[in-house]
Amino acid sequence: MRRNIVCILIVLLVGGILFAQNKGDVIYQISTLGALQEGVYDGVETIENLLKYGDTGIGTFDGLDGEMILLNGVCYQVKADGKVYRVAKTVTTPFTAVSFFDTDQRLQVNERIPNLSSLYDKIMSMLPTKNIPYLIKITGPVSYVKTRSVPKQQKPYPRLVEVTKNQPTFEANNIEGTLIGVWLPDYMAGVNMAGFHLHFLSKDLSFGGHLLEIDMSKATIEIDYTYGLQLTLPSKSDFFTTVLKQDKEELKKIEQ
Amino acid sequence: MRRNIVCILIVLLVGGILFAQNKGDVIYQISTLGALQEGVYDGVETIENLLKYGDTGIGTFDGLDGEMILLNGVCYQVKADGKVYRVAKTVTTPFTAVSFFDTDQRLQVNERIPNLSSLYDKIMSMLPTKNIPYLIKITGPVSYVKTRSVPKQQKPYPRLVEVTKNQPTFEANNIEGTLIGVWLPDYMAGVNMAGFHLHFLSKDLSFGGHLLEIDMSKATIEIDYTYGLQLTLPSKSDFFTTVLKQDKEELKKIEQ
Repeated sequence: MRRNIVCILIVLLVGGILFAQNKGDVIYQISTLGALQEGVYDGVETIENLLKYGDTGIGTFDGLDGEMILLNGVCYQVKADGKVYRVAKTVTTPFTAVSFFDTDQRLQVNERIPNLSSLYDKIMSMLPTKNIPYLIKITGPVSYVKTRSVPKQQKPYPRLVEVTKNQPTFEANNIEGTLIGVWLPDYMAGVNMAGFHLHFLSKDLSFGGHLLEIDMSKATIEIDYTYGLQLTLPSKSDFFTTVLKQDKEELKKIEQ
Repeated sequence: MRRNIVCILIVLLVGGILFAQNKGDVIYQISTLGALQEGVYDGVETIENLLKYGDTGIGTFDGLDGEMILLNGVCYQVKADGKVYRVAKTVTTPFTAVSFFDTDQRLQVNERIPNLSSLYDKIMSMLPTKNIPYLIKITGPVSYVKTRSVPKQQKPYPRLVEVTKNQPTFEANNIEGTLIGVWLPDYMAGVNMAGFHLHFLSKDLSFGGHLLEIDMSKATIEIDYTYGLQLTLPSKSDFFTTVLKQDKEELKKIEQ
């Protein structure tokens, strides 16, 4: 017990000294997940502009047209057909969370991570505090991965929970890939989702999507500590007129 | 009823057209109210640096040393003695919300606003949406105003609810002054307080503090629409190690 406390104190101390705050190191977010939940799917920022605020992150596209993976400054789209597309810089996004990735902590895991819950536990054990947001990047060979995407919607837009009821899911085995995502503190539950939100992209660009399940034999986990959230809200009328209900239970169903 | 709907639609339309988004028009916030609630009172940003992000706003000072009113780019401090002080630029703040004030909507009220609740109602009737934050400035002759301040704390810091149990309150009659504050959407409850948070400063700089009650005979209400929140989190260890409980009921007690 005493050893555990000493370990925790050392981690906190090292965290405080080694990973000093970089002022530009913030999560840049467009709109709120609550607005997306209510069907506010109109794109409000171009990918070209988004790249000024980050090279790594996740999101979706105008009309809820699939899952976004931003990796090394390149924007990829996993559409409802399960295929991966490079995205034109003129395409817009209604919701995204990105940052410039710099590795503050790296862990080489050489044991099996049999499921998503184990992966979450492994990452949680690395975080020096639950009070700041993190950008997460995990690479490695994947024994099994399950993802989903969402089909492009037409107006009048249905609520997100309606769309995800019929979401196409995809599975792959023995594939190399990268998981990109965020972990956000509980107090950010109103503007996004507390906890994890990860997307997957295979190395050969044949497979990807919103992560539902994973089995990895080994992995490199990289964590970027961020010290803030730059939230940009749409000035468009659909965002203005929507009643944001903040149904957390519904959100859990949508994201799992 | 139909007339009301038409009025609302016109307000929304005018709101959308006239008050187009200014990209720099965001609330800049240091830390979270939840952290302040738990006794994280160490200043983390100088007033000099804060002025780069706004000329108008509210907050507190290192060690919870009184109430901040930032007005026209000048930082004032109402200490626990009830007096108003000009603040040196080297002083630091642990929690603040500021922006550069530009008036998007102005209302000249020529009727009595007998209490805080009436003032809140009047402002709410002016807002085009409940989904963005607002910076608020109200000037006018005040028949009656009641404020509070908080005394500077020493370490180990007590929780905010303990401090405010013995908060000094102040009253003034027939005084000119300015109310400065923010209104934040419900979904920002985790990072700050949803709804209103106003501070008062008298024109003659003799009186001020966190607003508890008001009676105004007439007033000029100015509202600045903002399209985002730039949240900057402390990298100091007390912020890292504090468990943020998010007790909304307790927060209500503290702020009233």
